[in-house]
Amino acid sequence: MRVEIDPGLFDENARTAPSEAGRQIASIGAMDLLAGGHLPHVEIAYETWGELNEDRTNAVFVCHALSGDSHCIGWWDRIVGPGLAIDTERFFVVGTNALGGCQGSTGPSSSDPEGNPWGSRFPVIQLQDMVAAQARVADQLGIEKWHLVAGGSMGGMQALEWGIQFPDRVANIWMTASCSAHSAMQIGFNEAGRQAILRDSHFNGGDYYDSQQPSNGLSVARMIGHLSYLSDASFTAKFGRSLQDKENFEFNGGIEFAVESYLSYQGDKFTQRFDANSYLVLTKAIDYWSREDLSPLQARLLLTSFTSDWIYPNHQSVSIFERAQKLGKEVEHHEIDLPMGHDSFLLDGEHQARILRNFLSQ
Amino acid sequence: MRVEIDPGLFDENARTAPSEAGRQIASIGAMDLLAGGHLPHVEIAYETWGELNEDRTNAVFVCHALSGDSHCIGWWDRIVGPGLAIDTERFFVVGTNALGGCQGSTGPSSSDPEGNPWGSRFPVIQLQDMVAAQARVADQLGIEKWHLVAGGSMGGMQALEWGIQFPDRVANIWMTASCSAHSAMQIGFNEAGRQAILRDSHFNGGDYYDSQQPSNGLSVARMIGHLSYLSDASFTAKFGRSLQDKENFEFNGGIEFAVESYLSYQGDKFTQRFDANSYLVLTKAIDYWSREDLSPLQARLLLTSFTSDWIYPNHQSVSIFERAQKLGKEVEHHEIDLPMGHDSFLLDGEHQARILRNFLSQ
Repeated sequence: MRVEIDPGLFDENARTAPSEAGRQIASIGAMDLLAGGHLPHVEIAYETWGELNEDRTNAVFVCHALSGDSHCIGWWDRIVGPGLAIDTERFFVVGTNALGGCQGSTGPSSSDPEGNPWGSRFPVIQLQDMVAAQARVADQLGIEKWHLVAGGSMGGMQALEWGIQFPDRVANIWMTASCSAHSAMQIGFNEAGRQAILRDSHFNGGDYYDSQQPSNGLSVARMIGHLSYLSDASFTAKFGRSLQDKENFEFNGGIEFAVESYLSYQGDKFTQRFDANSYLVLTKAIDYWSREDLSPLQARLLLTSFTSDWIYPNHQSVSIFERAQKLGKEVEHHEIDLPMGHDSFLLDGEHQARILRNFLSQ
Repeated sequence: MRVEIDPGLFDENARTAPSEAGRQIASIGAMDLLAGGHLPHVEIAYETWGELNEDRTNAVFVCHALSGDSHCIGWWDRIVGPGLAIDTERFFVVGTNALGGCQGSTGPSSSDPEGNPWGSRFPVIQLQDMVAAQARVADQLGIEKWHLVAGGSMGGMQALEWGIQFPDRVANIWMTASCSAHSAMQIGFNEAGRQAILRDSHFNGGDYYDSQQPSNGLSVARMIGHLSYLSDASFTAKFGRSLQDKENFEFNGGIEFAVESYLSYQGDKFTQRFDANSYLVLTKAIDYWSREDLSPLQARLLLTSFTSDWIYPNHQSVSIFERAQKLGKEVEHHEIDLPMGHDSFLLDGEHQARILRNFLSQ
């Protein structure tokens, strides 16, 4: 099955490490975490674009997915930017790096009060804590209520969590390629990646910062992730059975196919910008999280999902839609027919944009 | 989406290591391999059930999938056995362990002529070589022509290869949950598993037999495999978000969900019975193999596939069907609507059996 896919859709910008240039740090104090842990001092990296209007009604908060960061204008460059659906000329757009991450926010690679990396002593973070930390950043920025909280995948889960934890602080929510609780299969994919890290001989219980990182484990974890981000059709369209820099098989036991080269390249590149402990902390947070009851929600809710997304399948969005509708919430769901799998939410700047604009204009 | 699935369908018999009791060894001499390697002495483990009739027209050959072996009456216990579709009271059934494997046949863990394990020096095997070795076993058993060659997944690929490499030695072929060439996504899943092994600090280039095995890498490879064998629906039906031996989350950074426990259990169990080098050799063999041109085929061809099998998707069987039909071959294809993913071919003893009986009775 060879599906016609616009090669432009495979632009990898969405997955490259952003510049740290515009990054600012909000010190939000101590946090008692939902699972019982305590962080004496939390910092959250954030970036902003555009201007907050006088009555503070044009603020948009963008939540990143597992491997993203505050630089949403980079990883979501078909959605966030001047003149785009999340228009930085019209909205005051804020992105943060999630609590537990490794792109400027407090996470396992950050220093404890004694100046040593947290490592194995970093407490369990839940998605609720991430959003609680984001709310403190909003406080500091003087934003009482978001016009929109938006995100895909893990970011969509945070957007929904915003609406449930802070019902009166969100006017509109957009979740794309997301869910209200991970399924067994989603947990399974995360767990295989975690096991690759935990079983790396350099992991050392999480205390590896003064020696070699568990790069091989993290790289394999990222490969497993990538397998779930594409679809059968997009793998075929992108690679097929093409060989890597050769005309014929070499039969040398090494990499032969382009898709093999791609996976190792993506895996190894990821280890340059991501911390293995953050991978464990963030995947655990999204696996733990579950919001069956949507009754606290006051925001209008927009859901988008993709026909070819088998790891965050459409029925998860349908389930949210049906529960919200039953409760009388204002909710829309659009299933978008695109072949690029879970990555569709990063790669599609057309259908999602049209749907979001339309939703916000009502 | 909670699908009603008969719990009996999750019987794990199909994946347990078989008894070695009935295993015999055929010494088939030296082999020049398609990729250029040479094995000075090859042994193939095999088992037989039933009686070969006088005119030798009731022989059935069963090919195993990646992790299987000669004991098809065990791993395919809903298909092969007394009174079953591949009826050991009616047919003379033969199963072998694939060349390159580790269940009695010559593979990387076997000894070279000097008595040392082959390890890193074991040559590249192709699927064509596996079938060539099987043909020599057939010669030794006095079987000129198989009434049926059958297999699922990698086994189905071998069944098709039989019909192409030895057109006049096969009357009927049954491929289930299989394909005529791996897609980029299938290669990708195999490659992530291979990288988990290759990056294990104990791998040592493949020469690990006198020290610690790369068990963690092999275990992670098996987890990746298992993720692809089930479906979203069967993961949900089997595990949902059930916790493992606890009522509430422990937030201790360890295993919390039943599906997490399952993956590590399956991964670690696998390392007790499987060799990491064999995993590399066999997955490479199935990734290399491609049979676009079906014109040599003389056998009648039966194809079955499963709606929920996303790793060997239905369209791969359709593609074989269409190419065979275009060439005027006698071919049937049945897509079976079952929710258990790729494992359906191991777990379904009803639909496949009915279709196979019907096909053979025509």
